[in-house]
Amino acid sequence: MSILAVGTVAFDSIRTPFGRAERVLGGSASYITLAARYFCEDVRLVGTVGGDFPDAYVETLRSSGVDLEGLDVQPDGKTFFWEGRYHYDMNERDTLETQLNVLETFDAHIPERYRDSRVVCLGNLDPKIQRDVLGQVDDPEYVIADTMNFWIENTPDSLEETLSLVDCLVINDSEARELADDPNLVTAARLIRAMGPETLIIKKGEHGALLFTDDAVFSAPAYPLEDIQDPTGAGDAFAGGLAGHLVRGTDRDGPALRRGIIYGSTMASFVVEDFGPERLLNLEPDDITGRAQSFQELAAIPQLVPVSEQPA
Amino acid sequence: MSILAVGTVAFDSIRTPFGRAERVLGGSASYITLAARYFCEDVRLVGTVGGDFPDAYVETLRSSGVDLEGLDVQPDGKTFFWEGRYHYDMNERDTLETQLNVLETFDAHIPERYRDSRVVCLGNLDPKIQRDVLGQVDDPEYVIADTMNFWIENTPDSLEETLSLVDCLVINDSEARELADDPNLVTAARLIRAMGPETLIIKKGEHGALLFTDDAVFSAPAYPLEDIQDPTGAGDAFAGGLAGHLVRGTDRDGPALRRGIIYGSTMASFVVEDFGPERLLNLEPDDITGRAQSFQELAAIPQLVPVSEQPA
Repeated sequence: MSILAVGTVAFDSIRTPFGRAERVLGGSASYITLAARYFCEDVRLVGTVGGDFPDAYVETLRSSGVDLEGLDVQPDGKTFFWEGRYHYDMNERDTLETQLNVLETFDAHIPERYRDSRVVCLGNLDPKIQRDVLGQVDDPEYVIADTMNFWIENTPDSLEETLSLVDCLVINDSEARELADDPNLVTAARLIRAMGPETLIIKKGEHGALLFTDDAVFSAPAYPLEDIQDPTGAGDAFAGGLAGHLVRGTDRDGPALRRGIIYGSTMASFVVEDFGPERLLNLEPDDITGRAQSFQELAAIPQLVPVSEQPA
Repeated sequence: MSILAVGTVAFDSIRTPFGRAERVLGGSASYITLAARYFCEDVRLVGTVGGDFPDAYVETLRSSGVDLEGLDVQPDGKTFFWEGRYHYDMNERDTLETQLNVLETFDAHIPERYRDSRVVCLGNLDPKIQRDVLGQVDDPEYVIADTMNFWIENTPDSLEETLSLVDCLVINDSEARELADDPNLVTAARLIRAMGPETLIIKKGEHGALLFTDDAVFSAPAYPLEDIQDPTGAGDAFAGGLAGHLVRGTDRDGPALRRGIIYGSTMASFVVEDFGPERLLNLEPDDITGRAQSFQELAAIPQLVPVSEQPA
């Protein structure tokens, strides 16, 4: 089985109350693949970098088992750069600088060998590029996509066109509210699913995630962490864990999606424990399984005693 | 078994994007008792109202089975009045007016007959009054308390003194962050539990609730509702459902608290479906049991497939 991840490969400069990191390996495609590769041997990356992208970062991805044939290198260009600052309340962040650089002219080209990818994970990118990618994959079995406020506000028609091709949209709560133009997440979910995606997952950071399908809602908790160093990449690691779990089997039903969300939440919970993708580089399979299983205790509701006609 | 609820009995004037209600029955003691009485026949109220409090509201409480011997009526005084406005995003509200009226001189007097109350539920009030109440109950088996930012900011020493007497503190997330002076809820929970309460429950509105005990964290989902008319009283109905469930048995351990939170969340989910306490006046026991049981499906995590050493 194979996963194709398309997205940014970036330099991130990050400041949090607990430290800072300069020009570390970042980008949605990096986090998706570095999380997914624990579940799937054949994880393929499509993205673009400039001539300034260090060999060491290429080696970080490659030695983690990520297939880099789809990594486009523009020798005369500069790599996408993002700089952000998180506050004491980690739910808020300020973007200090964004340099699109090579991303401005990115034209996703999918290597021939990638055309048979089974699960496609579209990181946050111009919806037109997301569609172009899907057009180059033969018959993907399952398409997961992310987006962000920028595309919701600036290219709504293009975004809707992409959404009609997506099986599972994974966005955060503020994006869901904006996309549906409704503050109630249950209503927003109904409206967004009517745009195309059969499945909607709403990420709520420290409040967990919600899964909306035809027949049910699933509310997943977030793993309770006291020591959060850097939230960067958590959402993409979530998508990587989700895609990774799903590609291991053929079920795409409620239980499979619930398990996928727990593995996504697990990978996200690891990422935030250190700066950049550091924590994703040295996990053991048992670490992942153990933390995922601990979500069951976290969410367990014991059998309930009914309320009787005759109060006690 | 018996529950003693102490708190405000009020007139609430409420505006939401979906309508408005003028001087409806409100107050923490009203919501706590109107929720708890579905679980427990002996629900006792302590609070104060003025001569302007209508017989119809007395009758609403009495006919619901609430024991009103502890309702102090000040014939020459006016009832506590609160006016608030909710926005399209129901997570935000503005207080437009607060008239303390008879609450300014409230001196909680517990009727002799109430001294044997088993579970005491202290609604948001001056922490000194909360302590005075506890001093008048013989040997309460379990004490649940609420508080708010006003007391955290203005009477921190008095609040800490009360907290040392409380078994279970039930507050919302912004109050927890302020009380502990820490934005991380897991850290905040540790710090708050060190102030006295063995158990801390953090209410997060549409994001559910968190339970912190010595040995575990429990994350409860919120019931997904599309049609929220008026959030007033949801937190107090939560406390009432929690107290109501607990008083039915003698266990105060993790499973009992988890069940209590689900019943609390259930009562809160009903309250918001209509203005004021309306929805609490006409529930059937099966309505409550059915919705509580639906939380299990909402939160169910299927058995997980471990991550293997050899990725798929």
